[in-house]
Parts: sequence; structure tokens; C-alpha cells
Amino acid sequence: MPNPTAAILIIGDEILTGRTREGNAHHLAGELVKVGIDLRQIRVISDDHATIVAAVRALSAEHDHLFTSGGIGPTHDDITADAVAAAFGQSISVREDARALLAAHYAARGVEFTEARLRMARIPEGAALIDNPVSGAPGFSIGTCHVMAGVPNIFQAMVAGLLPRLAGGAPLLSRTWQLMLAEAAIADDLRALAKAHPAVSLGSYPFVTDGNYGTNLVARSTDPAALEAAYAALQAAFPEGQ
Amino acid sequence: MPNPTAAILIIGDEILTGRTREGNAHHLAGELVKVGIDLRQIRVISDDHATIVAAVRALSAEHDHLFTSGGIGPTHDDITADAVAAAFGQSISVREDARALLAAHYAARGVEFTEARLRMARIPEGAALIDNPVSGAPGFSIGTCHVMAGVPNIFQAMVAGLLPRLAGGAPLLSRTWQLMLAEAAIADDLRALAKAHPAVSLGSYPFVTDGNYGTNLVARSTDPAALEAAYAALQAAFPEGQ
Repeated sequence: MPNPTAAILIIGDEILTGRTREGNAHHLAGELVKVGIDLRQIRVISDDHATIVAAVRALSAEHDHLFTSGGIGPTHDDITADAVAAAFGQSISVREDARALLAAHYAARGVEFTEARLRMARIPEGAALIDNPVSGAPGFSIGTCHVMAGVPNIFQAMVAGLLPRLAGGAPLLSRTWQLMLAEAAIADDLRALAKAHPAVSLGSYPFVTDGNYGTNLVARSTDPAALEAAYAALQAAFPEGQ
Repeated sequence: MPNPTAAILIIGDEILTGRTREGNAHHLAGELVKVGIDLRQIRVISDDHATIVAAVRALSAEHDHLFTSGGIGPTHDDITADAVAAAFGQSISVREDARALLAAHYAARGVEFTEARLRMARIPEGAALIDNPVSGAPGFSIGTCHVMAGVPNIFQAMVAGLLPRLAGGAPLLSRTWQLMLAEAAIADDLRALAKAHPAVSLGSYPFVTDGNYGTNLVARSTDPAALEAAYAALQAAFPEGQ
């Protein structure tokens, strides 16, 4: 059976204006590889209701899972929860289970539970909550659309709680062989190797260090035996690597 | 006149498998702000012909400019140039102008011009070349689709050469006011400020430092006077900031 597929949707003008370098998609990409969910697309869009609704619908339809990051805080520009509810035709309001979570979190810390904070208890009808051990305000899943915070440590905590609940597949394994040779110098041999090992994806990633050209050859497969065979062939073809 | 819009398409399995943290989109996002081109979407997809063709068509149709990064090197997994040609219904082959550029680059460095390197002279019919001062192999523009390398220093050099040739708009200006207050504590005041300054986009970005909550308030506008008015209002509303 093929692995489940996924997309990540990052919501936030701060990425598109170059103010913030996105890191949540990079973190989740590495976690999805381990649990055997194939990430097919990452998309970054702005904090705009119609744009979020359209992207959530399109990416949910095309993938087994959709993970979103950003826009579920207490301020006027946090519009993700309402947009996701709209995308799935669900109503949204303050839910008692989410309100109770927040109330307990703030009470334990002596923080006032204000009207603005109550906004973070707005959860679409029928959604399952995603635990937020950092700051209390939960994320949520509507079916296979998982809505999480944008603040990196909160996002990572939500991912850690969520992923074990999802059915994964065979983890994508990889081995890297590094050569201090330009990509072009090895392209022909590499093409032949790729043909000889069809169960393995062979990628080549050039780099420059101290003015010298190098290439990382990365073999990837969900089949451990096929991966080791391809890796051994890489080592034999390019014995100068490491 | 509204600013031209843009999307960035990053092509590469190394991002989707979490191996590499993407940085080219972040770099270009910052440059586009300066020249007044509004970045509306960043999309990361895998090295797959049909996926690239579909994304290039969709993003080109929806934006004034499309910038791509990755997949134009000499190896078997470098399929971007052929896919972009297919997306626009253009033929592609080794072009004499690109071949001459590469021949001169390698001759000057005493590097052999191999068959694999010649692959980098494959340029779609009708495309304009984008200069690569780092490693010779050019990028290209088909109309408003600009195809560039994935290696960061080459990508940045191509961007530096390309952007001055594009017609931009009014640069998006921004001012940031930082508060050591949780987002929720300022949400109501901020909502009122956002309403009072409709020509300015007011974003709030929470962070945690040494266990303390803080928020960066970012005002953005292409109108300098409106921006300064909103920034002054932010300072007045939250005098504890800096």
C-alpha cells in the first residue's frame, strides 16, 4: 500500500514579506519522513480569508492530510480557524471544551482570562482538539485537516502530540554520499545508477565550500534492502567519496 | 496602480523530505518587497515532470511574475527546464547563445566542457537568458516566468541581475514596535488601531524569550505618510514598547 500523502499550508504575511524565515514546514517535513507520510507540497499564503478557504479546499482534496501553521492567536489578523470552518462548511463558535482548557491553563498561572483570549476557544463544530502544552490554546483537526499554531515551540509541541495519532506508512530512509566533485563530472554515472536502482530515488545536491565544488548524493527509499544496494553501488562508483 | 504580483515555486525533493531548510524564497521575498512586487504565494513541489508543469501553468496564470528555483543543473533529476518549456508549449534544445556562454566560462577556467555540462545549455525556444556570474550556466525567462538555480549563491546572483529589469511598483514599507506583553493583552487595542488605519496592514507576531511573552507589532504600507501615522499611533497606544 502506498504511503499516505500530505501538504503543509503556512499562513502568514510575515513569511511573504521576507520578515520571517519559515521553519515550521522544515520541522514537520523531517517528522513526516519518520512516520511514513509523504509530503508532496508546502504552500505559503497570506492572511486573507478567501485565499485561505481556497487553499484549504484544494490541498485537502488532493492529499490524505493537510497541516496548517499560523493564524490561530487572539488578534484581529488571526483568521485561520474561521476560514478553515468556512472551507468545510462548518459553523464556528466558542466551544466549552476549549474554553475549559484555557480557563484551567490561565487559572493555574494567575493570568486573567480576557475576551481576547476567549477568541482562542473558537473551534469549528465537530473538530477534535490538538493539545497545546505550551500556552493552553488548542489547535484542532477537522477530519484530516490539522490546524496548528505558528509560534515555533507551540507548533512543534502540537506536532509531537498529533503525529502518533495518525496512521503512517513505511518511513522514507536515506543515505548520503558526499563527493568533492562538481555535479557535472558525475552526471553520466549517476544517471546509469538511477536507472539500475528503480526502487530508489537518487538525488544530487551541489554545494560550494571554500571555493571548491562538491555534491551530496542522496539515496532515498522505503525499502531498506534496495536502499543499501544503491548506497553500496554509489560507494563503488565514486570511491573518492565519504 | 496596484503593484505587480508574484509567486515563487521551489522545486526539490530535498526540501520536502526535510533534508534542506529552504532559504531562497526567504531571500527573494525580502528583495521583492524592496522593488514593489507583491509576493502572494510560495510553493514547494517535488522533482516530478507533471507536477512542475501543472504548478507553472497555475501560478503563471494567477500572478504577474513567477520565479522558480531549482532543478536546472546537469544531472538526471534536473528536469525543470524541460517541464517549464512543456508548460508553455515551447520546444527545448541546446541553444547556441547558452552553449557559447558555457564554453567561454569553462575555457577561462580550464574545465572540460562535457556532455553532462552541455545539458545546462538546454533553453526553451524564445526564452531570454538570465546571467549566472558564479558558475556560468544561465537561467532564463519565458515571458514573466523566471527560471533560476537552486544553489543559494547562484540563485542570489541571478536575482540580483534579474530584478532591476522588471517593472516594480511602490516598495512595501514597514515599521516594527516591540512589546514585552502577550498578544492577548493588546488584541482589543490593536483591533481598534487596525480599523482606524485602513491603508496600513497591522500584523502581530508573538514570541517567547527567556520564558517571557512578547509581541512584535508590524505596520506595513506602500504609503509613507499613512505608515508613519499608524506607527505613531502604535507608539502612543503602547508606550511601554520600543
